[in-house]
Amino acid sequence: MRMYDLIMKKKHGEALSEAEIRFFVNGYTKGEIPDYQVSAFLMAVCFNGMDEAETLALTMAMAESGEMLDLSAIHGLKADKHSTGGVGDKTSLILGPMVASLGVPVAKMSGRGLGHTGGTIDKLESFPGFSVSISNEQFIRNVNHMKLAIIGQTAELAPADKKLYALRDVTATVDQLSLIASSIMSKKLAAGSDVIVLDVKAGSGAFMKTFEDAKRLAETMVKIGNGAGRRTYAVISDMNQPLGFAVGNILEVKEAIEALNGRAPEDLNDACMTLASYMLLGAERVKEITEAKELLCETVRSGAALRKLAEFVKAQGGDERYVYEPDRFPKASLTYEVKAETEGYITSMNTEEIGLTSLVLGGGRETKESEIDLTVGIVFKKKIGAKLTKDDTIAVLHANDRERLTAAITRFQNAIRIEQAPCEPIPHILGVVEQS
Amino acid sequence: MRMYDLIMKKKHGEALSEAEIRFFVNGYTKGEIPDYQVSAFLMAVCFNGMDEAETLALTMAMAESGEMLDLSAIHGLKADKHSTGGVGDKTSLILGPMVASLGVPVAKMSGRGLGHTGGTIDKLESFPGFSVSISNEQFIRNVNHMKLAIIGQTAELAPADKKLYALRDVTATVDQLSLIASSIMSKKLAAGSDVIVLDVKAGSGAFMKTFEDAKRLAETMVKIGNGAGRRTYAVISDMNQPLGFAVGNILEVKEAIEALNGRAPEDLNDACMTLASYMLLGAERVKEITEAKELLCETVRSGAALRKLAEFVKAQGGDERYVYEPDRFPKASLTYEVKAETEGYITSMNTEEIGLTSLVLGGGRETKESEIDLTVGIVFKKKIGAKLTKDDTIAVLHANDRERLTAAITRFQNAIRIEQAPCEPIPHILGVVEQS
Repeated sequence: MRMYDLIMKKKHGEALSEAEIRFFVNGYTKGEIPDYQVSAFLMAVCFNGMDEAETLALTMAMAESGEMLDLSAIHGLKADKHSTGGVGDKTSLILGPMVASLGVPVAKMSGRGLGHTGGTIDKLESFPGFSVSISNEQFIRNVNHMKLAIIGQTAELAPADKKLYALRDVTATVDQLSLIASSIMSKKLAAGSDVIVLDVKAGSGAFMKTFEDAKRLAETMVKIGNGAGRRTYAVISDMNQPLGFAVGNILEVKEAIEALNGRAPEDLNDACMTLASYMLLGAERVKEITEAKELLCETVRSGAALRKLAEFVKAQGGDERYVYEPDRFPKASLTYEVKAETEGYITSMNTEEIGLTSLVLGGGRETKESEIDLTVGIVFKKKIGAKLTKDDTIAVLHANDRERLTAAITRFQNAIRIEQAPCEPIPHILGVVEQS
Repeated sequence: MRMYDLIMKKKHGEALSEAEIRFFVNGYTKGEIPDYQVSAFLMAVCFNGMDEAETLALTMAMAESGEMLDLSAIHGLKADKHSTGGVGDKTSLILGPMVASLGVPVAKMSGRGLGHTGGTIDKLESFPGFSVSISNEQFIRNVNHMKLAIIGQTAELAPADKKLYALRDVTATVDQLSLIASSIMSKKLAAGSDVIVLDVKAGSGAFMKTFEDAKRLAETMVKIGNGAGRRTYAVISDMNQPLGFAVGNILEVKEAIEALNGRAPEDLNDACMTLASYMLLGAERVKEITEAKELLCETVRSGAALRKLAEFVKAQGGDERYVYEPDRFPKASLTYEVKAETEGYITSMNTEEIGLTSLVLGGGRETKESEIDLTVGIVFKKKIGAKLTKDDTIAVLHANDRERLTAAITRFQNAIRIEQAPCEPIPHILGVVEQS
């Protein structure tokens, strides 16, 4: 088999066999196939696409290129959630305790990424003492005992994806459906859960700008997941504005605690209820979504979900008092209220710019070495559709540095559009994709 | 400027500016832009093409990436011919003397390539003593004095093309019109002639298998040449069978001498008359093609063209007696007559396979280091359209090695198709492309 022939085949729009895809993925991972052949191949894929079988084969080959986590020592069907990334997304912090409190095991392995805010691990580390540096044995024991644990990335998951992604990133071959879907799903498959619920974002703050693109990605990933024998669902959700009110690490943790106290903003509540319902459904904890929603409402109402968060935080060395007394969290030294200069309606937000505002404040990582400032961020008071009178506070920026704050204010103001004509609030959940 | 953005632009079907194309060609030649970005770009070009301006800019950037030969010390308009490559193509050996004998300067720089037979230099070296290792000054002096000289490649012509071609060759990005045309034309422009006549072959022995593809390539190259200020013409000629009767170095030299004696096979005569006519037209030696053809007939009839060959061979150290007494050339030790096993008509030939038969006999280079056997090859007795009775000789194979001969016989026989239904001979000249 020669890589040259595979490039030619794809260039001519033919489908590659599973053996051919494995040859290419394994050869590239081992360094036997050079970058320049793979980048030509990837560009041909951008034009001619991959069919369902090819996409599944690519995903499996990448998933199996490194360690495949074995979660078989955990009893029951394990459920996992993955978001394609958005601004203000703190759903993992809420879902995990909700689902676990209803008896479904959630065993999460996470890395630290780049982004507008830190990742779930960074947010959890807001609890003093909390650590993801636990042994695999402790991890398994915790999940079996209390249904919820998180561990830092110990194994090299899907190294082929890592190498391919780095090449795509510099050769303008990122934005192809099968390549995006296989990249996400290879890591999810390697991470071992039986049930995968995907949160696919659409809008100005998401990779997929339109509902249609998000839907196609969702469908492709659901097919891969089910093709690989995992129960997979995708929720398509709006990212034309941040999720909830808070953007920033501790600010989001506090909003998550509020949600577990039954006081979630409507969009955040919709997101968590929908995603968690499909986790329960996939794990066979319920037979229907309506039943799932009832159980989820009850676990929040009774305080069981909040207690699960405290139990989980404590089990990984964190101070669980912060769960019940969130005022203990440190605060940023400066705040600035962004006010409406005229009356009108918020009609749109450049959500990517709002994410960058958080980054400018110091809340995210610009490089892998950056230190995150856990206290800074943004708390919205108004969102799309809100009627503003002059001097209404739109949001409060939290900062520790005057210069950064000044830059952030300008950035934030430019990201918010206020118009005279009324504008409806936008729904958060746009659709759900299940296996057809 | 970033290569990433150029890849993205081409991927989205946008045209690149001249500055962008120069940035990419120069950056790649200097090693500042990596292979993997260029191969992704080339694949995007395979899908989205390049427009006329882009193709010209690419050609110029590649031509100017190395030395541009300065032939200004040669008086008059210099004419050059380039063939896209075929089997049995000995036209350069005939055209050069014909055109030069009519006063038009032909200053040729040639390299040694890989192929079914040697190149023009190899064939000329059949004359004992002939050498292309002459100084630049001697070269210019010879052309000024006798209008014809050939020199081995002394300068590095179009190094960007060399590097790009090597990359295309391993990334399945060879067969794109603009890339093919710019590759050929960059070297021709760097080689300095004012008039460029292209012989674009179409058929089973050519890179372009169909007339339509050959025509498109011809049109693209003519536009580039004229766009670069050179008078450029393209003749589209048939390569569904070898040109003339002889394939192999000395065998072709002898056929060329026969042609200069007025005894060319019809197809070879058509090729030489047409190509040479456009060289004369471009160099303003004549005003019309009919006038050119009369002059060319006369220079052959009078013996002036043959004497020009002898003069040229002698001036570069060769033994010119061979021109007048071609029986002096050494012969292969073995011959084998391929005979018709049944009666019928030759309806087609796999010309590429016939070229490979010559290679198997030892007449061409398989690697750059291969030694060529100048005496071996094939001499046809019958070509497409010929009526055969049983035991008619189709061709004679000339060899120096029994094993190679045996392999060559099988190969040759499989390349010739004989059928019962009559078949017309095929014309050689299929069309001419001039600037519109």
